Amino acid sequence: MAAALEDTGVTYEELQDLEAEFEDVEAELLRQQVKLNKPLYEKRSKLISRIPNFWPLVIEQAPPEIDEYIQPSDAALLLSSLTSLSVSHFEIENGGTGDPRSIAIRWEFSENDYFEDKVIEKKFWYRRAKDGWSGLVSEPVDIRWKKGKDLTNGLLGMVKRVWDEEQAAKGKDGKSEEVTEEQKALQKKIENTGISGLSFFAWFGYVGRRVSAEDSRLSIEQEAKKRELRAEDKTTEEADEEEDDGSQDEFEYEIFPDGNDLAVAISEDLWPDAITYFIHAQEQDTLSDDEFESDDEEAPELIEAGARTLEERPAKKRRT
Amino acid sequence: MAAALEDTGVTYEELQDLEAEFEDVEAELLRQQVKLNKPLYEKRSKLISRIPNFWPLVIEQAPPEIDEYIQPSDAALLLSSLTSLSVSHFEIENGGTGDPRSIAIRWEFSENDYFEDKVIEKKFWYRRAKDGWSGLVSEPVDIRWKKGKDLTNGLLGMVKRVWDEEQAAKGKDGKSEEVTEEQKALQKKIENTGISGLSFFAWFGYVGRRVSAEDSRLSIEQEAKKRELRAEDKTTEEADEEEDDGSQDEFEYEIFPDGNDLAVAISEDLWPDAITYFIHAQEQDTLSDDEFESDDEEAPELIEAGARTLEERPAKKRRT
Repeated sequence: MAAALEDTGVTYEELQDLEAEFEDVEAELLRQQVKLNKPLYEKRSKLISRIPNFWPLVIEQAPPEIDEYIQPSDAALLLSSLTSLSVSHFEIENGGTGDPRSIAIRWEFSENDYFEDKVIEKKFWYRRAKDGWSGLVSEPVDIRWKKGKDLTNGLLGMVKRVWDEEQAAKGKDGKSEEVTEEQKALQKKIENTGISGLSFFAWFGYVGRRVSAEDSRLSIEQEAKKRELRAEDKTTEEADEEEDDGSQDEFEYEIFPDGNDLAVAISEDLWPDAITYFIHAQEQDTLSDDEFESDDEEAPELIEAGARTLEERPAKKRRT
Repeated sequence: MAAALEDTGVTYEELQDLEAEFEDVEAELLRQQVKLNKPLYEKRSKLISRIPNFWPLVIEQAPPEIDEYIQPSDAALLLSSLTSLSVSHFEIENGGTGDPRSIAIRWEFSENDYFEDKVIEKKFWYRRAKDGWSGLVSEPVDIRWKKGKDLTNGLLGMVKRVWDEEQAAKGKDGKSEEVTEEQKALQKKIENTGISGLSFFAWFGYVGRRVSAEDSRLSIEQEAKKRELRAEDKTTEEADEEEDDGSQDEFEYEIFPDGNDLAVAISEDLWPDAITYFIHAQEQDTLSDDEFESDDEEAPELIEAGARTLEERPAKKRRT
């Protein structure tokens, strides 16, 4: 039943340009949101630092989009050792004028049996490719696993080595077409690793599309120019031809293909709603303790307080 | 594993008050968002008014949270006769200082076999109850069905009559405990109507909790006062005792219990992302036309244009 758009005098470009205007407004609102919420997140950090196990309890209640990636062995590590989690919009902090959609997710751990690191941070840059795609890209972050304790079974270290090798080659401008030993080994490892049992910690190896800051800047500039020309009703056909199909810049050795979605779920759900998840955890715990007790006088304060004030989940998850 | 909150020195009230501060920021941002997006939505309305079947095509692509409520007979009506859909934040329009979360959803129809109405609008008010609950409440909106064409099978008209009866009784302050004939009939009808085949149009009968504007105003005032006292570290135990448990203000004759969720899905998903859904519809249509054609030269423009520019779904759905 679709009416052919060309019969209407409305073009895809008009629709897209309007969508782009909406996106610009969104980005501006996000900028304001980060600014307005900053003191509140600082207050929250102080408050929850007094609650032992706050973040492990939140992780236990994580929504399916996050929970599905946490294997039992990941959970054992996270629940015993995660001391802090935080999300920052690092490109607009301290007066920065970058993209408000870029995020850094920082995990802090206590001394544990699995790795040496106390802090592991993964950054995601919001970038635009020449073909019009935009989204989050990242770089592999290695973890210093203790002997025999690597939950990714070597995968994370391998992807980091392949990445470093590539970066070094790029520096020398020796873009070799040859597949290196490291790449071969990683490829084989990926083929032999089932996605189903993949550790959550492989997420630190996510790369996404390889769009550099410079590529992104040029794409944004180019698109702005085209939009302007279209607004003046000038054709931009010749510009369109420059576009490639984007398939070349996919990272070939992706070990965690949904890494960007998981980052978004953490930053737009787990992080802003952490107190709600924490209260759920408390209620569940209290419920399981008291399920079979019928004496009203012993009814725990926690349930009452929680039930009364735990409002419906905010319809819009806008907090960052 | 939950640590008992009382051992930490942090109280539920502190956590809740902080959540409330975050919510205040959200409401303020929504206010700005509505303002900034206003000219863009006006532009969009103009643009899409030139595309026949724009809204039916969008409805066809509606996400599961909406689609699950649309029966085949509802679809027949919507796809043939819906000419316009719009969402407004009516409490903050034209300089209004009400709640930005209140929404009106307006449906416009062409002459059709089902009902006389050209415009059906349903309003949802964002209110706060004494027990701390907050959310959307509404009033039944009747539809002037043509003879034998009522998709709700009389349900919508009945709930409207029960509502009107109640409102009239309230005016006379004669809050009778007796169940009226209309109420009895509606109760029986609800019991005999399976939820599974329920028409989408029963949504116009959604009421939700009965929290009046005045109740809401008082609850907000009371809560603000309590927050203030808590901020000054004064106990508010006595105030807490005034709270009721909220069970009395549930509308007993609810014919569409998820009506508020559906309203939110329309206003925060279908409405802001309408162009994306429309482009999906175009692509699907073109795909099904050309699926078995392999000649590249005949590859439809639409797919190329769409595929190139149809970006990932915006991570945050913040547009209203």
